[in-house]
Formats: sequence, C-alpha cells, structure tokens
Amino acid sequence: MSPAIFVDALQAELQNLQYGESPPELYDPIRYIMSLGGKRMRPLLTLMAASLFTDHWQKAVRPALGVEVFHNFTLMHDDIMDQAPLRRGQPTVHEKWNGNVAILSGDVMLVNAYQLLLDVETERLKPVLERFSRTAAEVCEGQQMDMNFETRWDVTESEYIDMIRLKTSVLLGYALELGGLIAGADAETTRHLYEGGMNIGIGFQLKDDLLDVYGDPAKFGKQVGGDIIANKKTFLLIEALQQAKGPLLAELTGWLTKTEFDKREKVEAITSIYDQLGIRQQTEARINDYFARGFVNFDQIKANTDRKNVLIQFTRQLVERES
Amino acid sequence: MSPAIFVDALQAELQNLQYGESPPELYDPIRYIMSLGGKRMRPLLTLMAASLFTDHWQKAVRPALGVEVFHNFTLMHDDIMDQAPLRRGQPTVHEKWNGNVAILSGDVMLVNAYQLLLDVETERLKPVLERFSRTAAEVCEGQQMDMNFETRWDVTESEYIDMIRLKTSVLLGYALELGGLIAGADAETTRHLYEGGMNIGIGFQLKDDLLDVYGDPAKFGKQVGGDIIANKKTFLLIEALQQAKGPLLAELTGWLTKTEFDKREKVEAITSIYDQLGIRQQTEARINDYFARGFVNFDQIKANTDRKNVLIQFTRQLVERES
Repeated sequence: MSPAIFVDALQAELQNLQYGESPPELYDPIRYIMSLGGKRMRPLLTLMAASLFTDHWQKAVRPALGVEVFHNFTLMHDDIMDQAPLRRGQPTVHEKWNGNVAILSGDVMLVNAYQLLLDVETERLKPVLERFSRTAAEVCEGQQMDMNFETRWDVTESEYIDMIRLKTSVLLGYALELGGLIAGADAETTRHLYEGGMNIGIGFQLKDDLLDVYGDPAKFGKQVGGDIIANKKTFLLIEALQQAKGPLLAELTGWLTKTEFDKREKVEAITSIYDQLGIRQQTEARINDYFARGFVNFDQIKANTDRKNVLIQFTRQLVERES
Repeated sequence: MSPAIFVDALQAELQNLQYGESPPELYDPIRYIMSLGGKRMRPLLTLMAASLFTDHWQKAVRPALGVEVFHNFTLMHDDIMDQAPLRRGQPTVHEKWNGNVAILSGDVMLVNAYQLLLDVETERLKPVLERFSRTAAEVCEGQQMDMNFETRWDVTESEYIDMIRLKTSVLLGYALELGGLIAGADAETTRHLYEGGMNIGIGFQLKDDLLDVYGDPAKFGKQVGGDIIANKKTFLLIEALQQAKGPLLAELTGWLTKTEFDKREKVEAITSIYDQLGIRQQTEARINDYFARGFVNFDQIKANTDRKNVLIQFTRQLVERES
C-alpha cells in the first residue's frame, strides 16, 4: 500500500466537498483557503492509522477531512489575530476580503468540520466528537498562550513545550487517534496513536523553529530568519535567553529591543549568538528525542507490518523534511 | 407544572458549568458573557418541548444550555463585527478585553456548545448534532446577509424575512426541536416544533423592530429609536422605503443620507413617516400572522394539554412583551 492511494482518495473527496453557496462572502473564503494547498498531513495520518486496522479505511476519508477543515479554520482565525498578510504565499482571507468575513467564514468552517466528523458510525460518534472537542479547545488554549507569550520575555522551556503541545501537537495526536477510533482499535492502541502523534507533533514544531534559522534558503519555502526578524519566541530564542550570560545576553537583548535595524544583519547576529551557545545542536537533540519517543509509541501498536511501515515512512519524511 | 421549575433547573446547571480555566484570557470572557443574563428563552423552550413527551425532561438541561452557549457565542462574535460597545448594558468582550480575545473565546464557546450537546443518548446523537450544525451554519448565513444589507438600499421584504429567519428564527425552531428529539418525539412532531419555533421567531424579531420605534420608553430596555438613528434596515424601514412615494420618499431618503442631525428630530421625523404610511399597523398584522401560524403548528402536536399550555403561555409572553 503506497501513500499515493491515501493522497488520491483525499484529493478526490476534497474536490467533492460542498461547503455551502449563499451568501458567497461566507463560503468563497472557505473554498479559497482550502485551495491554497498544504501537506494535508493530518488527514493522511488519519487514513494511515485507520488502514492499520481495517481494509475499509475509505470510511475515514470524510472525518479525516473534518480535521483538515478544522486546521484551516484555525489558520484563518490565527491570521486575523496575527495580522498576517500572507498564507502559503497568497493573501490571507482578512486581507483579500475583510476581518468580519474572516471571522464569520472561520466560524462556519468550525461547524463544517463537525459536520464532516459526524460521518462516522453511530456507536463511534460520542468518542470521536468528545475527543475532537477536547482537542479543539486545547488548540484554542495553545493559540491564546502563544499570544500571551508575545509580550513576555521570561517564557520558560516547559511553558513553550506546553504551548506547542496544545497549539500543534494535540491535533496531530487526534488525527491518528481518529483513524484508530473509526477502525475500531482498542483503547490502548488509540492511546499509543495519540501519544505517538503528540510526540511527532512536538518534534515537528521544533523542526519548524530550527528550519527558520538553519534551513537551506533554496529549499525552505519561507524567508530564512523570519522568526528572528519578528522577535518570535521560538524554542531557539527561549533557550538562548535562558542560557546567554554577560555580554552575549546584552547583545541578544540589544537586538531584540532595537526598533530600527538591517534585517540581514539582525539575522546574522542572532544566528551567531545561537551558534556560540550551541542552540542548533541542543534543538536537534530535542527534536530527535521527541521523534524517537513517537516511534516507540508506534512500535507498541500491534498491526500489519507493511501498513505500519507506510505510516512510519511518512512520519520519517516529516523528521527529515527541509521545508 | 410551572415554568419556574425549568428556570430553576437551568439556573442550577448554569452555575455548575465548567468552561475551562487556563489561560484565563480564553475562559474568563465566557463566564463574563454568560453572567450578563438574558431571557434564557432558547433553553427554556427546549425543556418545555421535552416535557411534552417525557417526565425526564431534566436530561435535556445540558443540551439546552448548549443552545444558550451557542447563542452567546454568536453575540460575542456579532459584537466584534458590529463594533458594539455594550451588550445588556455592560461592555462587550472585545471592549473589555480586545478583539483577538473575543475571536478566540468565541471559538472555544462554539466548541463548548457542541460539548454540551454531546450529552444526549448515543442513538439521538446524530440527528441532534446534524440538525444543530445545519442550524449553526444558517445562523452564520443570516449574520452575513445582515452585514451585506448595511450597504444596500434595495433590500426587499422577502430578503429581510429570509435574513431574520436564518439569523434568529432557525435557532428558536431548533431549540424546540431539540427538546422533542431528546424526548423521543416522532419526526412529524419535531417538524411541528421546529416550524412553530420558526414562526414564533420571525414574529419575535419583527416585534423587536416594532418596539424599537413604538415601545414604551419606560418599559423598553434600550433607547427607543436606536435603529432609526443608526439607519438599521428593519422591517419598518424596508416597508417605508418600498411604499413611500414623491415628497415623502424624498424626506425619508433625506434623513437617511444626513450625516449630521439632531437624534430626537430624526426619530420623530421618521416615526411620522411610518405613521403616515401605516407601517405600525402593517407590522403588527405581520407579527400577529407569524405568531398565529406558530400556534397552529403547536396545535398539531399531540401531547398532554397542561404541559402544552405551559409552552403556549410562555410563548404568549413573547408575543405580548413590551421589552
């Protein structure tokens, strides 16, 4: 079984999705943001997880797209809150339409996500939706924590890991768990799927932080150093703020408080501080640690080896990604 | 059975509701908006509807509060979109905190609403949530239509009725339908409940439009004439714009396009135009018509007469309200 089967099944259903028609200001932005692409990582994880326990993994396609619609809803609302002009290189919804449209289209996307998740067998409905609702609330908690961090300089490593766990990882965990729930896997197995997704998710977000600084500009989709320019509290910056002492700390805080600066100069200076502190190696070690934990979780799942290898190979690509 | 039983049961459960704790910026606004009060009309309708078919109407309390939480979520997001400074005489969430907090707290309220609605028996879950999701999407459609009307002067009566049907009435219809679904009523009965709620809801909103102009200032909670001052497209204004001719139409559009005016003078002038056109009587006739249709729907429901009278009495108060 090749991942292409899952990609094709998702794409076909995605083309068919009917979000709604009228008024167009409500539904056009949904079609727009869903058309901007993305890795479709979450629904692919759901299908791969379902295929571990059933040949009828196709029944997970619409619920899997519920997770993808939910993810895109969070992007639409996060972009308003972050005043982001671009998403995947295209204008964000609040820029292309306006803030009110982005609020209300996002609201109806959250409803759409639930509608897609309702397409499971009646006896699975309660756990599927209870776990989804808990996860959705946690994603909001993570976003609020992330916003709270913007005005703080004393964010600890454990607070940061907790934030990315909520904002990013619980949804990857849920995506895998959902596949297990739909396929009728037992509670212990769905727990391993969830924990595995959580650990991979934390590693994935730390890798995102790392690539922003140390990514290959030719391969990385975004501007290298974007987080540094924006003073974004990433794992790297939080570690540097905790570890730098004396003149190095003064230099770092100097750059963080400057309102006028040459962007390239700031990126180079802060990267050099990271280098002096060994932040790159520390971050890589933590990433490898979380990914390794995730693979241990997957090891504990009893399932067909070939199908498990499809999931593990796909996850490895997330580990080794350069963009 | 007195309505006080339902009010008490709702209040007790409302006090107990746990929305979440951390981060406080996410959950404090939910407790705040829920504490501002309101008629709790929607969950009361759910409990009264459930009591028509079961003695165990208490099992509808938490799902009924799901409808109330959803309604308050729409208020929180509508207030951002309308830039409203006050809600029930208190600062709105986006004023008291900020816009981002109001977006994200609202999002998690929508999730909370689903969580409360999950508290029904497994075999009822799919219809309860499918109908809720459809209704929730329609409420968003109504809000978008309402915003679209702000910049239009050619809104027709039927477009306006369609907008208030979506924005207000479908949720009253669903509140009643939900009670029936939880209590195991048959499809024909839940349809009568829904249609009844819809008709009452349209009458209710038209009454709101009427009271804004012709309400008794001593009894009406808000400033009489508020809609006139703001050029809000109400049923009365839409009718007046369609019916006024010649100098009267010129006078009306003159007031609507004036940017500087004495508020009392504008309210008096436009009220006088309404009087000359007989808009008050026409609106009252339409209100009575929708309420009468609602009572016909209720008549068709087979249930204990005493309990039906509780619902009908409660609905009559909505008809005869002066605030």
